[in-house]
Amino acid sequence: MLPFVVTATDTASRARLGVLTTAHGTVQTPAFMPVGTRATVTGLDPLEVAGMGAQMILANTYHLLLRPGPEAFRRVGGIQAFMGWPGPVLTDSGGYQIFSLANRRTLTEEGARFRSYVDQRMHMLSPERSIEVQTAIGSDVMMVLDECIDSTADAAQVRAAMERTHRWALRSLAARTEPDRALFAIVQGGVNPALRRESADFLTQHAFDGFAIGGLAVGDTRSEREEITALSAELLPAGRPRYLMGVGTPPDLLQAMLAGVDMFDCVLPTHLAWQGTAFTGTGRVKVTRSSYAEADEPLDAECQCLVCRRFTRAYLRHLFQCSEPLGPRLLSMHNMHHYLALMAEARRQIAAGTYAAYARAKLEAIDRHEHGARRIGVAADDAL
Amino acid sequence: MLPFVVTATDTASRARLGVLTTAHGTVQTPAFMPVGTRATVTGLDPLEVAGMGAQMILANTYHLLLRPGPEAFRRVGGIQAFMGWPGPVLTDSGGYQIFSLANRRTLTEEGARFRSYVDQRMHMLSPERSIEVQTAIGSDVMMVLDECIDSTADAAQVRAAMERTHRWALRSLAARTEPDRALFAIVQGGVNPALRRESADFLTQHAFDGFAIGGLAVGDTRSEREEITALSAELLPAGRPRYLMGVGTPPDLLQAMLAGVDMFDCVLPTHLAWQGTAFTGTGRVKVTRSSYAEADEPLDAECQCLVCRRFTRAYLRHLFQCSEPLGPRLLSMHNMHHYLALMAEARRQIAAGTYAAYARAKLEAIDRHEHGARRIGVAADDAL
Repeated sequence: MLPFVVTATDTASRARLGVLTTAHGTVQTPAFMPVGTRATVTGLDPLEVAGMGAQMILANTYHLLLRPGPEAFRRVGGIQAFMGWPGPVLTDSGGYQIFSLANRRTLTEEGARFRSYVDQRMHMLSPERSIEVQTAIGSDVMMVLDECIDSTADAAQVRAAMERTHRWALRSLAARTEPDRALFAIVQGGVNPALRRESADFLTQHAFDGFAIGGLAVGDTRSEREEITALSAELLPAGRPRYLMGVGTPPDLLQAMLAGVDMFDCVLPTHLAWQGTAFTGTGRVKVTRSSYAEADEPLDAECQCLVCRRFTRAYLRHLFQCSEPLGPRLLSMHNMHHYLALMAEARRQIAAGTYAAYARAKLEAIDRHEHGARRIGVAADDAL
Repeated sequence: MLPFVVTATDTASRARLGVLTTAHGTVQTPAFMPVGTRATVTGLDPLEVAGMGAQMILANTYHLLLRPGPEAFRRVGGIQAFMGWPGPVLTDSGGYQIFSLANRRTLTEEGARFRSYVDQRMHMLSPERSIEVQTAIGSDVMMVLDECIDSTADAAQVRAAMERTHRWALRSLAARTEPDRALFAIVQGGVNPALRRESADFLTQHAFDGFAIGGLAVGDTRSEREEITALSAELLPAGRPRYLMGVGTPPDLLQAMLAGVDMFDCVLPTHLAWQGTAFTGTGRVKVTRSSYAEADEPLDAECQCLVCRRFTRAYLRHLFQCSEPLGPRLLSMHNMHHYLALMAEARRQIAAGTYAAYARAKLEAIDRHEHGARRIGVAADDAL
């Protein structure tokens, strides 16, 4: 079983501090994992990512299966050697990509058959094949293959996908050949509390190393996300890590940590950087705005990142105006630092027992900046 | 007059070692200046560029005049502050861009009138306006506005452009308001030795801080470039820096240093990186080739750069196959390191008096790799 120890708990919330131990190093939780879908965190050098405080990154089985293929990882001894990342890696199973990306997909009880976007060949991604590929990639924490559906699907569809996810989870567990590689199950059930409860009850009866909350940030509102996250986290065993998949914004993270979530991943830091949007202590800034043409101040005066200490908004805007690749690179660095610094500060606050007050003040500051005077909880959805 | 001291000369060639002193630091010559056209060296952090050994960079008056405009530089005290580059900057005058890029251009004795590609407004770039903008940018070494034409133009056109370049050079000199900013004249005359001689004779009678060889790498062959470069360099005063503009490949640099050239700039290191081409000690490598899919060795086993010490050809190929921005970034780092390391090695060889033999061996190794068994000098043109 993956070593995981809870070392402190917040006084006024369910937030907790923990340590996860993998073959490639330890991870202080709560942790944000930068997304390295194709064995690269978009535009960033792995040493930069590590230098900003990332402890573990996420890679994706679906994309890596198609290119460069599992053999490329077997040949060099895993993704760490392949991409020059020195630490632990979690691999998503490919379930979400089969749902959202795959061409000519046919889904059966066996798995998903689909056409490669690289060479047009047909592939079968079954629970067993996903574990085989994740093992080849050299994953420290593997995910079970799950069936993802739109979170607004009808109750019968949501139940059917959840039940298949349960059967696939057990097949994934049975397919694991190397017990020292952790395997996480994924709680599904859409935005239906009763189904989420049923899913958590079922999966926690089996020997998974950790539990993820899946199927969120796919059409749900911020308040639905918060409710389902809090409910699911409460139903998961205290002694095992809880991972909220693909979520989300800084407010999402702050809220989910209040509920006791330990692990996160999200493409937003780099994704928004490429669109010219930076995160700051009080919310988002679109650097391409013409009002920043003469802004000789940094993105965030409080930020200690290498970008804020050296470049002005006016210069960053200039880079975006000229479509210069240094622009998204610098914004990606800043945004990634912002996320990782937020997590480091959250860990300090949990250790001091002051996280709940910190998180609420932080949520209010962001909400005030991004949504004017509206109260938290009724704020407009800040979905992508 | 810009302080420039020749500190050593090669024993068997005209190659020489020098030191250029500017308000923003000294430059050991021969020096390669990375091209930062729009106040950014494509995709690279200025600290990376400095860390690889760049001492001075080049920026472009034409592009910076249009965006962000001279006022952006005046406001923050120059391009060094604007882009976070700690060292000296040379600015090209815009002459070459007016020739090669400008829309709806009308060229008169006064200067060039053209339409901005940013906001469609008309601009007049005269010798005086170019000096004014270069001064605002905060240039340490300014260039005179020159009239560039295709090097294969007929003799009358080449002479007319050369004579206008001379008149514009004197107007540029008269327009300089701050004598501590260096100003270089540009020798023109196409591939006609007599005209090149006339141009050098004329310009060297005036108090320019240095002399550039312009109008090459615009349609000429490698042997024409070598002949004209060697001739022009010989005609220029030994006590002043010689700058070969926009040239070129590693063989071009090695040859020009043999002829006594002190300064270079070229977009090739980053330009070819974005196309997936890397420079190695024995020539170019196209990393996207399918034969590198399983190549677990670095781009260049002899190279000490951060890319070659950490990444394989197979990984770099994977990044390019996936259109991942880390690919061109890592290749740009490698290529820039390759150029800067070549210059550092050339300086060591000149100091030791062994440059001529070193350069010839190096030229042969590259030639053997890139053109099979053909002899140097009759090698096919490796033009872009």
